[in-house]
Amino acid sequence: MENTTACLLISCPDKQGLVAKIASFIYSNGGNIIHADQHTDFESGLFLTRIEWQLEGFNLPHDLIAPAFNSIAQSLQANWELHFSDSIPRIAIWVSKQEHCLLDLLWRHRAQEFFAEIPLIISNHPNLKEIAEQFNIDFHYIPITKETKIEQEKKQLELLAKYKIDLVILAKYMQILSTDFITQFPQVINIHHSFLPAFVGANPYQKAYQRGVKIIGATSHYITADLDAGPIIEQDVVRVTHRDTVKDLIRKGKDLERIVLARAVRLHLNNRVLVYGNRTVVFE
Amino acid sequence: MENTTACLLISCPDKQGLVAKIASFIYSNGGNIIHADQHTDFESGLFLTRIEWQLEGFNLPHDLIAPAFNSIAQSLQANWELHFSDSIPRIAIWVSKQEHCLLDLLWRHRAQEFFAEIPLIISNHPNLKEIAEQFNIDFHYIPITKETKIEQEKKQLELLAKYKIDLVILAKYMQILSTDFITQFPQVINIHHSFLPAFVGANPYQKAYQRGVKIIGATSHYITADLDAGPIIEQDVVRVTHRDTVKDLIRKGKDLERIVLARAVRLHLNNRVLVYGNRTVVFE
Amino acid sequence: MENTTACLLISCPDKQGLVAKIASFIYSNGGNIIHADQHTDFESGLFLTRIEWQLEGFNLPHDLIAPAFNSIAQSLQANWELHFSDSIPRIAIWVSKQEHCLLDLLWRHRAQEFFAEIPLIISNHPNLKEIAEQFNIDFHYIPITKETKIEQEKKQLELLAKYKIDLVILAKYMQILSTDFITQFPQVINIHHSFLPAFVGANPYQKAYQRGVKIIGATSHYITADLDAGPIIEQDVVRVTHRDTVKDLIRKGKDLERIVLARAVRLHLNNRVLVYGNRTVVFE
Amino acid sequence: MENTTACLLISCPDKQGLVAKIASFIYSNGGNIIHADQHTDFESGLFLTRIEWQLEGFNLPHDLIAPAFNSIAQSLQANWELHFSDSIPRIAIWVSKQEHCLLDLLWRHRAQEFFAEIPLIISNHPNLKEIAEQFNIDFHYIPITKETKIEQEKKQLELLAKYKIDLVILAKYMQILSTDFITQFPQVINIHHSFLPAFVGANPYQKAYQRGVKIIGATSHYITADLDAGPIIEQDVVRVTHRDTVKDLIRKGKDLERIVLARAVRLHLNNRVLVYGNRTVVFE
Repeated sequence: MENTTACLLISCPDKQGLVAKIASFIYSNGGNIIHADQHTDFESGLFLTRIEWQLEGFNLPHDLIAPAFNSIAQSLQANWELHFSDSIPRIAIWVSKQEHCLLDLLWRHRAQEFFAEIPLIISNHPNLKEIAEQFNIDFHYIPITKETKIEQEKKQLELLAKYKIDLVILAKYMQILSTDFITQFPQVINIHHSFLPAFVGANPYQKAYQRGVKIIGATSHYITADLDAGPIIEQDVVRVTHRDTVKDLIRKGKDLERIVLARAVRLHLNNRVLVYGNRTVVFE
Repeated sequence: MENTTACLLISCPDKQGLVAKIASFIYSNGGNIIHADQHTDFESGLFLTRIEWQLEGFNLPHDLIAPAFNSIAQSLQANWELHFSDSIPRIAIWVSKQEHCLLDLLWRHRAQEFFAEIPLIISNHPNLKEIAEQFNIDFHYIPITKETKIEQEKKQLELLAKYKIDLVILAKYMQILSTDFITQFPQVINIHHSFLPAFVGANPYQKAYQRGVKIIGATSHYITADLDAGPIIEQDVVRVTHRDTVKDLIRKGKDLERIVLARAVRLHLNNRVLVYGNRTVVFE
Repeated sequence: MENTTACLLISCPDKQGLVAKIASFIYSNGGNIIHADQHTDFESGLFLTRIEWQLEGFNLPHDLIAPAFNSIAQSLQANWELHFSDSIPRIAIWVSKQEHCLLDLLWRHRAQEFFAEIPLIISNHPNLKEIAEQFNIDFHYIPITKETKIEQEKKQLELLAKYKIDLVILAKYMQILSTDFITQFPQVINIHHSFLPAFVGANPYQKAYQRGVKIIGATSHYITADLDAGPIIEQDVVRVTHRDTVKDLIRKGKDLERIVLARAVRLHLNNRVLVYGNRTVVFE
Repeated sequence: MENTTACLLISCPDKQGLVAKIASFIYSNGGNIIHADQHTDFESGLFLTRIEWQLEGFNLPHDLIAPAFNSIAQSLQANWELHFSDSIPRIAIWVSKQEHCLLDLLWRHRAQEFFAEIPLIISNHPNLKEIAEQFNIDFHYIPITKETKIEQEKKQLELLAKYKIDLVILAKYMQILSTDFITQFPQVINIHHSFLPAFVGANPYQKAYQRGVKIIGATSHYITADLDAGPIIEQDVVRVTHRDTVKDLIRKGKDLERIVLARAVRLHLNNRVLVYGNRTVVFE
């Protein structure tokens, strides 16, 4: 347990003594803080913080930390999450026909860029089954039509439950999740192939070409009920010119999508992202 | 006349022999080509080219080049412009209350980044008069209200005619020009303080903050009748974080606006921009 | 005094309880922390932090804060600085013949991007005197030759003392300061027109052109005795192509130099930069 | 043969009529130019051009184009290359222990980003054999020591000859090629994990960390006898902060290396790169 750490993500109304209270809780129990960052949003009057400490020598066992902190949190009217570095998140990757984001995530996983397990791939097309097999990951083909969507989402939710999935990554899944689904399973990261909020919805590269933009982008965000409108985790861009056809935009965009999605997933897995309202604080 | 050059910007239906015909016209008259670039838009079947040559030793005098090329152009069904490097474009800068783009343009002009004259500044507020005086440029204060807009645009057009203006730069003018104005004076470059087409219209920084984007941008484009929808010349972006307030976005955006507008103006003045449809070819 | 804040920059050997101790010192005296950020450099075993709090309602008067914190600092073996937001730093800008960085700094100062006073400009050439006059800043022309350098640096130091200067900005000063000078006045920020450590020394744009790089940069750093080797505060880059001549690199580089220097100065003035070894922590 | 094109890359002393002569050669033989770009380096007095045309309806058969153009080329004292789009270049990828660049190139190849064949992988370590097998590419393990280098390079050259290789890509090969090797096989593209010319040689990420840079880069270049000093094809950069350890720089750098190498290879394969002196013209 030598290198195990605990990490608190906290948001609460701003007031005096918050840093002292939280830091003292950890120090008084013998924890060594290795990362602490905070942000005050003066407009909304919110204090947001991420604090991570080593558990070696910490007085409280894992299962008593949350109850112990809870009494402090209640006095602060705080929303909070507690994560342990030895608790490995379980990821399901959802895909459609395109392989680049899936392959990139699996490579990075193999290269140990992500501290997580990936036991499940779900797709509405059978095309990428072979990749799943190659990486020894269960692949479930769940086709979706307008008529079958609700029914199929039930199957998807059952699979997420069965595989004990903590996070769904939409790696070019190209389908819209129902509000009902999102309510039941809210931890979903998407990659959208545009610089949001430009070019919401389908065919953003075609739209970008039509508009004659000189830069294209990609955006990774949490899914909410509003299409492409959830809290943004990461964005990046690349220059294009008049010489770039739609096909070139797609090719250049694939590199962006891979990198932006990977950064967002890594930030999420490292508990660096705190959502409040429709915004994120990214404690880099 | 030693370093004087002529520059043709041509667009026409693509067909065989275009490069040879145009290059031969110049060569057969004794011109030395110093820049030639072309682009074929296969989707629209258009050939677009920029060709610049030295006039020293060229057989045709200035005023006979256009008529001579015209017969070739007609056979090619070409749209074309001819520019001479010793013909100095005349610019009017239109401003409102913010000075950063104006000052930046004037500094660059003084530093000889722009080959142009700037005899006229028009503003709907009196605030920046002093800067105009400092740089010895005529300043005309033309306030605009809904009621007076049509009338005042007449005055503006008269000034543009009187000062023989070739190009209007909207350096944070913050007013929408009427379709009628644009029809009469179409050569207008604008700087919009967002990464278009995201955040069209007013208060883009406020909107960007609300949306929680991780990157902001600026866009320089030609004005058309549709708000913020004209052909894009140049865009650039800068990263922002959750720590950046709207005020910070405005501050960071000012640097973007200055640079993006300056690049667009320079490209235009160097005859590097060819508009077709709602797109630009930028021959860099 | 409503919005006045105090800011501590601290570096000390890492050990348990540092955040709690420092935060409790502030909280127990009635301070409201508005920014706290920390970094642990595990390689060197150093803990580095920036903590800023509102002085309204703080129990200790300005002049007792340092003595009070000193006893804590000693127990932590800490290096530390204390800054008050109502204490306005005084800047001297040093220039040579080029105006772009000087003008940019003065504009930003006028636009209130810098919370500082700029009472003094020193130059080894008389060229930019007029700009100083225009902004009502004292201008001292101190020419430098190999023979007169030591003697002239004495004059420069006397001026810095006389004007009570806290920070010198070398805004394209193009002269190397002696080790002796730097020892006596170490707070000097420089802008170097390359992506350091590429192209140390003279003529970096010429060297970049010769090397055929596809990107050029600018670097702002604190001056140390080793040429262009001091702790880097900020860097940025811009793409170039085979079409860019040395003159184009210089033009594009000027935009980089202005922006990179301005960012570095602002970070320094906001007490966001903590130097340790030859590195900086930038608490953005 | 409908979409087959021919492409000339030409460099010669600048003089009048070059564009007309070359374009007329193609037009008079019935070719339709689909891309023409040129650059004049006034400092060296060189004219450099890339011209590509459709072979459908072209009067000359493939094997007579070079002889026919040769007479023109001789009169222009031109260096030139002729490439046909239906002639598929053959690539050997050389690796060591790291897989990220190799995998990235193979993915892109499978995704048809590269028009080429990759029949051969050579490595001085056996580690990546499995990847070669997975993609059905011959893998040759050729260990290198100081003592065996010359001997082993002979084997390497024999393999390049046997497999009819046109281009070697050093995808993190981590070995220096002898001058003798480069003389015999000059078409070698390397990826260096720094923003050259900063951090030439071994351990650039360690050096970048030590120097405290705020941006790291990667550079793809042709190999020459001087270490990391060959003509640069492409560079790109990414921001880093004080929080990034050497391990983080390596991780972030891997993404850069993949993208920069892929761009350089694609530009080379599309005959977009013209080397002259130690510089490249990249006809994008």
